[in-house]
Amino acid sequence: MSGVNTLIRCWAHHTGSGTDGCPPERKNMVVNTQTPAPNRRMILNAFSMNCVSHIQQGLWVRADSRQTEYLKLDPWLQLARIAEAGCLDSIFLADVMGLYDNYQGNADISFKQAVQVPANDPMLLVPAMATVTKDLGFAFTSSVLQAHPFTFARQLSTLDHLTNGRIAWNVVTSYLPNAGDNLGFDGLPPHAERYARAEEYLEVVYKLWESSWTDNAVIIDREAQIYADPSKVRRINHHGQHYDVQGPHLSEPSPQRTPVIFQAGMSDRGRNFAASHAECVFVVRTSTHAIPGIRKDFEKRLNEKGRSISEIKLIGGVSPIVGGTEKEAINKKNEYLEQLSVEGGLVHMSGQTGVDLGEIDPSMPLDDFKTERIQGVVKNLIDTAPPRTRTFGDLIRNNLSGAWLVGSDEQVANELQNRFEAGLDGFNLTYSVTPGTFVDFIEGVLPILQKRGLAQTEYTPGTFREKLFGHPRLPESHPSADHRYQ
Amino acid sequence: MSGVNTLIRCWAHHTGSGTDGCPPERKNMVVNTQTPAPNRRMILNAFSMNCVSHIQQGLWVRADSRQTEYLKLDPWLQLARIAEAGCLDSIFLADVMGLYDNYQGNADISFKQAVQVPANDPMLLVPAMATVTKDLGFAFTSSVLQAHPFTFARQLSTLDHLTNGRIAWNVVTSYLPNAGDNLGFDGLPPHAERYARAEEYLEVVYKLWESSWTDNAVIIDREAQIYADPSKVRRINHHGQHYDVQGPHLSEPSPQRTPVIFQAGMSDRGRNFAASHAECVFVVRTSTHAIPGIRKDFEKRLNEKGRSISEIKLIGGVSPIVGGTEKEAINKKNEYLEQLSVEGGLVHMSGQTGVDLGEIDPSMPLDDFKTERIQGVVKNLIDTAPPRTRTFGDLIRNNLSGAWLVGSDEQVANELQNRFEAGLDGFNLTYSVTPGTFVDFIEGVLPILQKRGLAQTEYTPGTFREKLFGHPRLPESHPSADHRYQ
Repeated sequence: MSGVNTLIRCWAHHTGSGTDGCPPERKNMVVNTQTPAPNRRMILNAFSMNCVSHIQQGLWVRADSRQTEYLKLDPWLQLARIAEAGCLDSIFLADVMGLYDNYQGNADISFKQAVQVPANDPMLLVPAMATVTKDLGFAFTSSVLQAHPFTFARQLSTLDHLTNGRIAWNVVTSYLPNAGDNLGFDGLPPHAERYARAEEYLEVVYKLWESSWTDNAVIIDREAQIYADPSKVRRINHHGQHYDVQGPHLSEPSPQRTPVIFQAGMSDRGRNFAASHAECVFVVRTSTHAIPGIRKDFEKRLNEKGRSISEIKLIGGVSPIVGGTEKEAINKKNEYLEQLSVEGGLVHMSGQTGVDLGEIDPSMPLDDFKTERIQGVVKNLIDTAPPRTRTFGDLIRNNLSGAWLVGSDEQVANELQNRFEAGLDGFNLTYSVTPGTFVDFIEGVLPILQKRGLAQTEYTPGTFREKLFGHPRLPESHPSADHRYQ
Repeated sequence: MSGVNTLIRCWAHHTGSGTDGCPPERKNMVVNTQTPAPNRRMILNAFSMNCVSHIQQGLWVRADSRQTEYLKLDPWLQLARIAEAGCLDSIFLADVMGLYDNYQGNADISFKQAVQVPANDPMLLVPAMATVTKDLGFAFTSSVLQAHPFTFARQLSTLDHLTNGRIAWNVVTSYLPNAGDNLGFDGLPPHAERYARAEEYLEVVYKLWESSWTDNAVIIDREAQIYADPSKVRRINHHGQHYDVQGPHLSEPSPQRTPVIFQAGMSDRGRNFAASHAECVFVVRTSTHAIPGIRKDFEKRLNEKGRSISEIKLIGGVSPIVGGTEKEAINKKNEYLEQLSVEGGLVHMSGQTGVDLGEIDPSMPLDDFKTERIQGVVKNLIDTAPPRTRTFGDLIRNNLSGAWLVGSDEQVANELQNRFEAGLDGFNLTYSVTPGTFVDFIEGVLPILQKRGLAQTEYTPGTFREKLFGHPRLPESHPSADHRYQ
């Protein structure tokens, strides 16, 4: 089916629903006829979080979801086994270090709907999941506000050793004020300050990972009783604005040294940060027509940093809802749609935007919004509302389901191919229910993608970076390379 | 054999070695005839570290040690399985956040002999080991200098959830100046300041663990779509000298909430800290005759804090060398003795004491030390040298092997019983080789202890605290109880 013109019809056309979460540009899209570049393959990550309710608020109540079991090892071991059985590239774990607490001025609905709270540490799931997998990568989120870089760098190296080099770090700078208040920053430091801190944080960890031990420092000569050559280990003596770190790194060089760097912020500053440091960029919900522009934008920014667009992978976010036939998928979607929590969505969006959406009655028709009375986030939301969105609540529901790809296995495969050929390198698969969403995808959609040569059928040997890029270390153009101790 | 008068003969009497690591008070000791108090049982922990060489420097070169495989999951999974097969209480993981770098003014020998460097993060071994065990506890070390208490408390809660309440935290304040320099403290903060910080650190984590969520805050009512009751979760609003933490804790209450608290510092300030906070105190190498005094001292200190001696367990450190018969054990001991690294021991001791022992020639006879020329650490060392110690190197070798208990399975069991009856509640078993030391102990000594009713033959159900103390939460007398949110 590769390269065939295939009409992708949005499920909204079949259901006539006005709250379908289907952005206008997804209608009547045509799959590009161009064949994929040789060796180019779709990166596929299972996107999750060590909590009850990650993105699609309200669905945790379903009996077929294991999300309320997040406290136990078993659902995570199961997820890891499923992901590796599907040759997925990684499990990508999101995180926050604070509450969504600005909706109606408190966190009440956050707790009721479990909107990313409770939320446990993601990093600690990795060693457990590593015991039942051999090739699966593990990407997890850690904010530069939450851990001292010396401690964090050693934790990353420890994980990279234990997993034989399967670790990626999603670098974030936090956006919830409560995170700042929890970590001693007296509120969230301003955006620019957080990114300045992130720059120094990365400088410190690069020095620890790359600059402390040479590749051949560890000898392990039992007869001579020499484990490591002291002349090949050095202190880093970092003295900066935020950190003073003497070193050396206490971990010997791990398979990847610097783990694969993920980044997600889509602000101008965030994109520049990604252009400097990232190897994978999570561009979240990206409509097909916007992809080439985003790709161009990143190409330009990377070039300005002396890097090439081939050095990063652009990862979109999708939530496949499949059920064999299109009809089954639509039935499933309709069930989900009813169970989505509009309040949970409002909480999530209020926290993400920093604007309390709690004063707006969700049942208020969009037509009643006088554009002169609204501005900012709310105006943007209403301006980008899909046609036939009736109420503000429908708009929120649309947002919650915005990443949904609903259809038969083949229809979803087609749409993924379409976006892949438009310039995305892969997808974070967001769950509606876990592990069901991932199982359905792997059983239904994945074999089609594999048959078309778009998705891998077996893992490439080596570290996560080797699997993604074919080379073990970051290229010379990456800022970490400046610190390399040869 | 329980309660029988048994002559324990120190192996030194058989070998005539002057460098035997056998303190004088261990000679001709008699096992108390008193029977153990009902329900009193010996706590047994496997003591290790996520590194090549923990305490008995030099032995990592042995072919029968797996310590050079510390970077991989497999030896840790094996160790966990062995420990649980032996019904040990826990694996207790030590840690440092810096180099031993004052011996001869540098860290050269540290790297050569792998003296606790490289050293990886201990916490990240726990989730992996949890996947292959059900009852084994996990105690690990984390310094109050290395992690922000908000981040750390969530990591502990995450682990406590994943393991169904099997976590203990060994609270330390660091002693290596390089740890301070690595973590932005410009050297190690003074002793008193570190303990003051530790007090506040504990106050913060107690508030997060005990004061944030009520026991019944989490409802999980699917029909009503309510995960948690917001009226039963509150911020902690801690504002102190070192930390400002708003909260609430992001983790819902874990099985133990506050993990079991271990402590090891034997300074006056350290003992007071333990008297306030600890549930298990590692009193390291404790001669039998000194045990009642230590117990009395702790009793007095605990009483001053409104606690009772029954609220803590005193854990000694021993390194059993057994081999079936006494002769086999002695042969093994002689092999180990030859392989111990005096230089490694000097590095370790220099770091621990803060005094560079690098200017002393290890071959120098003790008789040549003019007592008027030496003072401080070196004088203390020489003053407490066992008889027939010839050279300074022998003294160091003696120190490295100071925790050795060498003999037949029964002889070692007798000596453990002796110390147990003198007032120790249990032992951290230090390895010479891993997992061999633990296997030998579990196969040989443990069945004898079990037969005598001194060691458990199966696990008590429940959390680690329930297994140790019979109750799930810390008693009202513990400072954490002040913060309880009912």
